[in-house]
Amino acid sequence: MPTEPNQTGEGAPRKVLALAGGVGGAKLALGLARILPPERLTIVVNTGDDEEFHGLHVSPDLDTMTYTLSGWYNQETGWGVAGDSFETLAVLKRLGADAWFNLGDRDFAMHIRRTELLRRGMTLSEVTAELTGRLGIEHPIVPMSDQPVRTVLETDAGTLSMQEYFVKHRAVPAVRWIRYAGAENAQPSPGFAGALESADAIVFCPSNPHLSVAPILAIPGVRDAISGHTGCRIAVSPIVGGDAVRGPAGKIMGELGAEVSAVGVAREYRGLCNVLVVDTQDAALADAIAAEGIAPAVTGTIMQTDDDKIALAREVMGLAERAGFPLSRE
Amino acid sequence: MPTEPNQTGEGAPRKVLALAGGVGGAKLALGLARILPPERLTIVVNTGDDEEFHGLHVSPDLDTMTYTLSGWYNQETGWGVAGDSFETLAVLKRLGADAWFNLGDRDFAMHIRRTELLRRGMTLSEVTAELTGRLGIEHPIVPMSDQPVRTVLETDAGTLSMQEYFVKHRAVPAVRWIRYAGAENAQPSPGFAGALESADAIVFCPSNPHLSVAPILAIPGVRDAISGHTGCRIAVSPIVGGDAVRGPAGKIMGELGAEVSAVGVAREYRGLCNVLVVDTQDAALADAIAAEGIAPAVTGTIMQTDDDKIALAREVMGLAERAGFPLSRE
Repeated sequence: MPTEPNQTGEGAPRKVLALAGGVGGAKLALGLARILPPERLTIVVNTGDDEEFHGLHVSPDLDTMTYTLSGWYNQETGWGVAGDSFETLAVLKRLGADAWFNLGDRDFAMHIRRTELLRRGMTLSEVTAELTGRLGIEHPIVPMSDQPVRTVLETDAGTLSMQEYFVKHRAVPAVRWIRYAGAENAQPSPGFAGALESADAIVFCPSNPHLSVAPILAIPGVRDAISGHTGCRIAVSPIVGGDAVRGPAGKIMGELGAEVSAVGVAREYRGLCNVLVVDTQDAALADAIAAEGIAPAVTGTIMQTDDDKIALAREVMGLAERAGFPLSRE
Repeated sequence: MPTEPNQTGEGAPRKVLALAGGVGGAKLALGLARILPPERLTIVVNTGDDEEFHGLHVSPDLDTMTYTLSGWYNQETGWGVAGDSFETLAVLKRLGADAWFNLGDRDFAMHIRRTELLRRGMTLSEVTAELTGRLGIEHPIVPMSDQPVRTVLETDAGTLSMQEYFVKHRAVPAVRWIRYAGAENAQPSPGFAGALESADAIVFCPSNPHLSVAPILAIPGVRDAISGHTGCRIAVSPIVGGDAVRGPAGKIMGELGAEVSAVGVAREYRGLCNVLVVDTQDAALADAIAAEGIAPAVTGTIMQTDDDKIALAREVMGLAERAGFPLSRE
């Protein structure tokens, strides 16, 4: 993966902790990985969406991140591996398995291997390091916790896991409240805990605040560690022009009574970040964001090409530099 | 599956228990399944070759039998599912898994589903009934035991599992002795035990005596039950013209000091069966077989087409009828 060590100068943050969920988060993480060397970036990924399918441990956000950084990601479908086939799933259906969650043949290999290594006693962190390393990814992709935390949605269609809500029910049911089962007994993974201590800047990637970032914040100690962090903390709004760029983030924010806008995102992250990057479409919201105690930064945030992802990552790193926070511990 | 109830008359055995391993056994079992209705045939299959790959429970002989009876079997390769692809295995290799055992994408679905159901607490018998039923197989395919029995070969290349010997080492190492680990603590599966009690005839399919049939006989009580069985017990020799029709049966018999011929097979099955069916090539061995206390029967035993399999099955059932053993318990 090409890195450009000269891109970030004297004042740039030495170590960056990126918090991410799936698709949107992985896009910015890819940009960051292209401009920061592995030792300066830790990507911490939500595992609240993890679920067992066919007895196999599936980690949708870890996989989206892994496939994105390895170049395997299927940009057309928005999930899984590009060009994957579905022979295994077709037979599983034939054998009576409940196969509403799409899993391709190559994708299955990830879940089979992950499950095997977990059953051998490795932690999810160790397994993730092994799998991503095998695919040539040099930047650390770290699960938020090695203990299970499961996002549970109470909806007008009943209690649903994240994947049941998102895939089986196509995000249609109205969400009444969300809980993060197991969070109270979870700890930040070693890689996450280390990054929380050593990071000079924290980046909230443009992921769903309730479904991707909130599970990370629900782990005991994480919210306080980020609130009290003295480095630059920058969020990129996943809400652009009154709705999520992708996925149900806007719908859920509305159902939970929040304003579906970058201002609503600012309120979610109040006390957690210093800067909120919003899209040029939302320039008019700058004052309202500032009123929440967060400095607005306006730039193009829609990432379609890899160049878009790199450009936004550069912008975010530039903001961290200009923010004038104590960026180096040296 | 077409059955021909008129094919077997008044004196034919009411209930048949077929003992089988993989490929050769499955061929005769297919023939039997084509001429006997499901309630008159129980196919008991060796599970001594079972092994865990990638954390999944693989049952090679059960699968060969299942694929053969469902029409899924890959006749060209002699293993797996016809037309299968290998995407999952390719990625598993990439992920660092030891992938010397070929598993196709459709095949993987069987192992994934089997493993899931076993982990839920179902027995291997229950799982096998579920999987075969889903594939439309009406005849009971029954594992020899629900407890693990593992065929272990002591060879000049070290201690090997059956699949390590057969696939990884291509059956090259010389076999010094064979043991059936766990057999002492195993019981016949409920379907096997029931068939041992109710069968009017027992058929030893043309499977490897040491690697396919011996594990079945190693389960406590089985050898005695078959020895003492008063019905007709017919074996079909897997050795034709001085070697196995397929696989290492002949090589192993020789290495273990046995005569590699239908006479050697007769010695393996002495006291266990009344009739040994040998190929026309081996007609000259009839007297030597009779000298072992087993009635020889000579016919064509090479099964290439389904018609061959049905013809041999008819021959075997006719022998049972003519043997004049107490064929009915009514």
